[in-house]
Amino acid sequence: MEFLVRLTIDVPRDLSHDEFRDLMASEQKRGEELISQGLLRSIWRVPGARANISLYDVKDATALHETLTSLPMWPWMTAEVQPLATHPLTVETSDRPA
Amino acid sequence: MEFLVRLTIDVPRDLSHDEFRDLMASEQKRGEELISQGLLRSIWRVPGARANISLYDVKDATALHETLTSLPMWPWMTAEVQPLATHPLTVETSDRPA
Amino acid sequence: MEFLVRLTIDVPRDLSHDEFRDLMASEQKRGEELISQGLLRSIWRVPGARANISLYDVKDATALHETLTSLPMWPWMTAEVQPLATHPLTVETSDRPA
Amino acid sequence: MEFLVRLTIDVPRDLSHDEFRDLMASEQKRGEELISQGLLRSIWRVPGARANISLYDVKDATALHETLTSLPMWPWMTAEVQPLATHPLTVETSDRPA
Amino acid sequence: MEFLVRLTIDVPRDLSHDEFRDLMASEQKRGEELISQGLLRSIWRVPGARANISLYDVKDATALHETLTSLPMWPWMTAEVQPLATHPLTVETSDRPA
Amino acid sequence: MEFLVRLTIDVPRDLSHDEFRDLMASEQKRGEELISQGLLRSIWRVPGARANISLYDVKDATALHETLTSLPMWPWMTAEVQPLATHPLTVETSDRPA
Amino acid sequence: MEFLVRLTIDVPRDLSHDEFRDLMASEQKRGEELISQGLLRSIWRVPGARANISLYDVKDATALHETLTSLPMWPWMTAEVQPLATHPLTVETSDRPA
Amino acid sequence: MEFLVRLTIDVPRDLSHDEFRDLMASEQKRGEELISQGLLRSIWRVPGARANISLYDVKDATALHETLTSLPMWPWMTAEVQPLATHPLTVETSDRPA
Amino acid sequence: MEFLVRLTIDVPRDLSHDEFRDLMASEQKRGEELISQGLLRSIWRVPGARANISLYDVKDATALHETLTSLPMWPWMTAEVQPLATHPLTVETSDRPA
Amino acid sequence: MEFLVRLTIDVPRDLSHDEFRDLMASEQKRGEELISQGLLRSIWRVPGARANISLYDVKDATALHETLTSLPMWPWMTAEVQPLATHPLTVETSDRPA
Repeated sequence: MEFLVRLTIDVPRDLSHDEFRDLMASEQKRGEELISQGLLRSIWRVPGARANISLYDVKDATALHETLTSLPMWPWMTAEVQPLATHPLTVETSDRPA
Repeated sequence: MEFLVRLTIDVPRDLSHDEFRDLMASEQKRGEELISQGLLRSIWRVPGARANISLYDVKDATALHETLTSLPMWPWMTAEVQPLATHPLTVETSDRPA
Repeated sequence: MEFLVRLTIDVPRDLSHDEFRDLMASEQKRGEELISQGLLRSIWRVPGARANISLYDVKDATALHETLTSLPMWPWMTAEVQPLATHPLTVETSDRPA
Repeated sequence: MEFLVRLTIDVPRDLSHDEFRDLMASEQKRGEELISQGLLRSIWRVPGARANISLYDVKDATALHETLTSLPMWPWMTAEVQPLATHPLTVETSDRPA
Repeated sequence: MEFLVRLTIDVPRDLSHDEFRDLMASEQKRGEELISQGLLRSIWRVPGARANISLYDVKDATALHETLTSLPMWPWMTAEVQPLATHPLTVETSDRPA
Repeated sequence: MEFLVRLTIDVPRDLSHDEFRDLMASEQKRGEELISQGLLRSIWRVPGARANISLYDVKDATALHETLTSLPMWPWMTAEVQPLATHPLTVETSDRPA
Repeated sequence: MEFLVRLTIDVPRDLSHDEFRDLMASEQKRGEELISQGLLRSIWRVPGARANISLYDVKDATALHETLTSLPMWPWMTAEVQPLATHPLTVETSDRPA
Repeated sequence: MEFLVRLTIDVPRDLSHDEFRDLMASEQKRGEELISQGLLRSIWRVPGARANISLYDVKDATALHETLTSLPMWPWMTAEVQPLATHPLTVETSDRPA
Repeated sequence: MEFLVRLTIDVPRDLSHDEFRDLMASEQKRGEELISQGLLRSIWRVPGARANISLYDVKDATALHETLTSLPMWPWMTAEVQPLATHPLTVETSDRPA
Repeated sequence: MEFLVRLTIDVPRDLSHDEFRDLMASEQKRGEELISQGLLRSIWRVPGARANISLYDVKDATALHETLTSLPMWPWMTAEVQPLATHPLTVETSDRPA
C-alpha cells in the first residue's frame, strides 16, 4: 500500500558538529537501504523547509510506522501521513526521477 | 520542474447524467494525453475524498497553470500546489505504479 | 488494515420526504451488509453533529475508497480518514459494543 | 459512556535511559490494568506520530479525566477527547482486534 | 453528566414570515420544557452571533444527541459539544442566573 | 456581566514539589474567595486537559482582567474569554452543581 | 464597557438596485443615530474587504447584541466581538478622527 | 495612516525582579512619549491575555515598524497589524477614552 | 505606500458567455489603466488557483480600498491585504518583469 | 521562475552582542550578492514582524532551496514559498522600488 509522507525535521541544536555529521550519514545510509528494499519509492525536498516528501510502498500502516521510526533522525521528526488509493488513470511509467 | 498537486473536485450537481458521463470521459482522455506527454508522472486517489494527488513534471509554474486549466473538469476543481526540489537521495526507479 | 473514518453528512434538502426515507433505508441496509462482511467493525454517532465515526477493517486504502463510495448517501458525505497501526497493548476483547 | 481519545506524547528528553525504560514499563502495566478493568476497550497507534487513539468506556467525563491522569506518562501527554453516542447500526461483534 | 454546547443557527431564508414565527415559538416552548425537566440548566446568547451557549445535564452523549435533535430548529443548527468533568472547587450555589 | 473563561495551565516544571504544592493550595484558596464573593459562579474541568472552564459574573472586562490576574497560577495560564449576553430563555434555577 | 467589533457583510445579491440602495441608506442613518447616542465611538473600513471595524461603548454584552441586531444590514452580517479592558496608558485625547 | 495593532507579550522569565520592573517603567515612559507625539491614539488591554490592542496614526507601514521596534519590550512582543481605511460614517468625536 | 494583495475570484456562473467575456475585457482594460498610472506595479497568477498576487503602490489603505473596489470583477473578489515596509536591502532595479 | 518567499526569523537569543552583529553583517552582504546576481529582485519588511517578503527569480525550486539555505541566518529562519505564474497583465516597468 502507498503512503505519501511529509517529514519535518526539528534540527537538533545540542549535538556537536561530529555527532550531527554522523547522524546525517547514518540517515543517508538508512535511506539508501529503504530505497534498495523498494519501500522508499520517491523522495523530494520541500523548498525553503527542513522537510521532505516521500512516497512509501509498504504492507500497511503498522509497517509504515516501523519503517519511519527506524530512521536515525526519527527523534527529531514529525510526520504527516497521507494514505493513497489507486487511480483509474494509474500511470505505469518506466523511468521516474526521485 | 516537479510539482505535487492535490485537486479537489466539487462535483457539478446541475449536469444531466449524460453531460456528466461525457465530462468524465473527456477528463480521462485529457489525463491520458498528459501522461503520454510525460507531464503527468503519477496520480493517486485520496481515499474517502473527491480528490486526487498528482505528480506533474513541467517547465515552470506558468506551464503548470496552463496544464491544470486545460483539464475539462477544471471549472469544478480547486488545487493545492506544492513545488518540489530534488533530494540528495533521489531515487532512480525503473517501475513505479501511478 | 484498520481505518478510523469520520463521515459528515450534508443532509440533502431538495429530496422529497419519501425519497429521503428510502435513501436512509438503503443506507441502513448497506451498513448492515458491511457489518456482516466484517468490513465495518464499529460505528458511533458524534453527539450534536450529522456525522458518525466508524472503524473499518479493509485490505487497503483503495478498498476503503470503494467501500465508502458504495454507501447510498456518499454523494452527500465528506470523509476524514485516519489509518491505524497496531499498538503493543493490542486488546483482544470478546465483547465490544459498536 | 464511550470516548475516543487521541493521546499525543511529547517524549521527555531530560530522562536517563533507565528512567525512560521504567516509565514505559509502568505505562504498559497501567494500560493492561485498564484493559482488564474493561475501561480501555481498544487502542491503536497513529502511524508516523508519537500518539495513540484509544476507545474508553467509563462512567462519565469526570471518570475519564481520572483515568487519563492516572497514566504514568500523563505529565508528557495532551489529549483530544471525543464523546461518542450510540449509533442505530451499533455493531455487536464478538472478536475485535485491538 | 454535564455538557457545554454552542449551537450556531443558519437562519432559514426560504421560510415565510409566519412559518418562521411559528418555528421560533415552538423552539421557545421546547426550550422551556427542557428547562423544566432539568436537562437545560443555563443558556446564554453569544453577543453578535446567531448562536447560544447552553449547559446541559443529561445521562450521556447519546441522551445529549437525542435532546439536541429534538429542537425544532435542529435542521438549521450546528453544535460544538464540550463534555465537562467535575472540578474540585465545585461550587454549590443556591441562586444562579441562567 | 457574565463571561465564560477557559483557562489552560502550562504546568511549571522547574518548581520543587513543595513549591508546587503551596502554589496549588493558594490557587484553591483564591478560588474559594472568588466563589464566596459571587464572582466565580461555576467551574468545570475539561476532561483530558490541564484546563478549566469557569463562569465569571463581574462588572466588566477590566474587572475580569483584574480577577484573572489575581490568580496565583496566572503566570502559567492562558485564557480564552467569551462574553455572554442574556438569553430570552434565561433560566432561573435554584440549585446548580458547580 | 468597550467592544471592538469586526462586521463582515455578505452582500445580498437577490435584492433589486432600489432595494439595495434603500438598505444602504437606512444603514447609514442607523449608524449616525448610534454615533449621536455615543454608542458607536469609531468606525473604519477594512481595506479590500466588505467589512468594517467599530469601537462600541455600551452597557454590556447584552446591550451590544441588541445594538448590532438593530442594524438594517444585520441579516447579512457576521460579527467578531472583542471585549476591551482599560489600559494603564489610557489615553484621554480630545480630538480623534473616526 | 491608521493601523490597529494587537501586541502579544511573551513575558521574559529569565529577568531579575528589578530588571523586569525597570523594563516595565521604560515601556510605560515610551508609551507616554508616543501618545504625546500623537502616534499612539488609543490603547486597550485584552482581558485575560498578556496583550494590548492599540490604534496607531503614522505616516506609513515603514514608520509603524520603526515605532513598534522602538518599544523597550519589543524583543518579547509579536504583532498583528491591521491597516485601516476611512469609513463614510467617520466619526468626529471630541472625547474618546483611550 | 506599498501593499501586496492576493485577490481570489469566485467565478460568476450565472453570467452568459458574452457577459463574462465583456467583464473580463473591462477587467483587463482597468488593469492596464492602473499599471499606466503607476498604482499597479506587478501582478502574478497563483498557479492552480483563480487568484492573482499584485503589488500596489498607493497613498494609503483608503486609496487601496478605492482602487480595488474600482475593479469590474470586484463583486466576485475577496482580498488578503499585506502592508509592506521598506527593507534596508531595498533593491533599486531597473527592469522587473510583472 | 519567480517565487514569493516570506522568511520569518526566530532571533537567536544565546548569541553574544558581537556574534549577532557579525551575523547581521554577513546576512546583509549575502543579500547584496543575491541582488547583484539578479536572483533577489525585491524585498520588503513585514511591518510589526521579524519577517521579510522577497521576490526571487531562480531556475527552479531546487535552486531556490540552495539560495535560501545559503543565507547566514538560515538556521534561525522558516520560509513560506509561493511559486508565481506569469499574468497576462505582466507589467514591464522600468523603475521599481525594492
